[in-house]
Amino acid sequence: MTRQQLVQEIRNKKTYLCVGLDTDITKIPKHLLSAADPVFEFNRQIIDATKDFCVSYKINTAFYEALGRKGWDAMEQTVNYIPESHFTIADAKRGDIGNTSTQYAKAFFETLNFDAITVAPYMGADSVKPFLEYKDKWTILLGLTSNSGAQDFELQPAGDGLLYEKVLTTAAQWGTPENLMYVVGATQADSFTAIRNLTPDHFYLVPGVGAQGGSLKEISAKAMNKEVGLLVNASRAVIYASTGEDFAERAAEVSKDYALEMAGYLQ
Amino acid sequence: MTRQQLVQEIRNKKTYLCVGLDTDITKIPKHLLSAADPVFEFNRQIIDATKDFCVSYKINTAFYEALGRKGWDAMEQTVNYIPESHFTIADAKRGDIGNTSTQYAKAFFETLNFDAITVAPYMGADSVKPFLEYKDKWTILLGLTSNSGAQDFELQPAGDGLLYEKVLTTAAQWGTPENLMYVVGATQADSFTAIRNLTPDHFYLVPGVGAQGGSLKEISAKAMNKEVGLLVNASRAVIYASTGEDFAERAAEVSKDYALEMAGYLQ
Repeated sequence: MTRQQLVQEIRNKKTYLCVGLDTDITKIPKHLLSAADPVFEFNRQIIDATKDFCVSYKINTAFYEALGRKGWDAMEQTVNYIPESHFTIADAKRGDIGNTSTQYAKAFFETLNFDAITVAPYMGADSVKPFLEYKDKWTILLGLTSNSGAQDFELQPAGDGLLYEKVLTTAAQWGTPENLMYVVGATQADSFTAIRNLTPDHFYLVPGVGAQGGSLKEISAKAMNKEVGLLVNASRAVIYASTGEDFAERAAEVSKDYALEMAGYLQ
Repeated sequence: MTRQQLVQEIRNKKTYLCVGLDTDITKIPKHLLSAADPVFEFNRQIIDATKDFCVSYKINTAFYEALGRKGWDAMEQTVNYIPESHFTIADAKRGDIGNTSTQYAKAFFETLNFDAITVAPYMGADSVKPFLEYKDKWTILLGLTSNSGAQDFELQPAGDGLLYEKVLTTAAQWGTPENLMYVVGATQADSFTAIRNLTPDHFYLVPGVGAQGGSLKEISAKAMNKEVGLLVNASRAVIYASTGEDFAERAAEVSKDYALEMAGYLQ
């Protein structure tokens, strides 16, 4: 999917919500456990219920890998089920030496046909560039993450600024706003204005709204740019809004609430 | 596997070689392609041929994920086939917020029963600690990697030293030499003495010998400690020593050569 197509979808639907499919088989409603593939069945119903209120789905690969080959099966089925109109993200945090990153790019962009993958920056240019070489595919590099561990390295001094700032500005030379986004956690709202100044044109994937406590209002005010530039992810707050038989209806309600709030910020 | 068991295996077999199963279906001998699972068949023959000359196998997850569910199947079969005596490493470079790293730990330590996993440090303490909580399992954190991209962040100034030094010393507070190792690339031989001074007791997983050009002699001289403290990995140099029907015999010869050289350094 191109940047222009993504921005158009956001404008048309008046939402920049990404729904995170962090599907944990121990947390899904009990009545689904008799399905042939409970994880895929849960995802299918969540997608049907929320697709009108979001423009993107993010699959957190860890939850699928925890189930071994069955989980990988459920991931394949899920990404194939997501409508073409929606931007699909493999939240995989991959990154390795060049010839290995090439294999990860093949896994997520060819074998599974995701639009985007999250990538860890630690190993530098040759670990990231193989992902950037795919036309109309996206690399979403970790910038400043939402977790407490961001203090340990990301927010430490590195050269003239902080490490995450060095990552943002260095990687901006490897890709363009047409193929590179950054992960910026919603819990880092104090830093959003500075981050937008450093990278005015890039999209951000923003996790941490909902269960992790970030403010949608604040990040939208500080980081939206003229082409929106934001995909805000909610995972647990949407998919586990109810653990009963009404889980899909409740997921629809919560994602609709996010979308309505976003429509206000888009005006 | 405990540290004591690993050191004992190294002493008994007089080798600290790890064979890297970076098995690329486009590079394996043509006569294997008619097997039910060519990747597993290749690995099985490589393991049979090399197990006397190494103490560890490292599975590079990227090459398996590139094949989708079939690749995940081949990975499961391979890790189950490796003898109990050998230290098994998932070279997966994972790392995410705490609740997600917990799922990755489950995937590689429970579902797949590896002894160890490689982990990326960028996201800090809560992204690493879930791996450290498993008894007799190992976290192998990226320190200074073998690729050219190490220059971009790892070797840049961060506080009083370089970023990778900060990673080594910070993470040494999260784990112990009983459950934490570091990845240090063999191409970084100039830094090995300083790294050993910073972390005198930890094991290092050292990739980059062979195809990447690192010197086994130099790293052994600089970084071996009184409990050896080294697992040196060779992947392509062993498994693709021949691309013909003699691939397993040639892999045995090359791994035996490494083991003989290592036996000399162990005296």
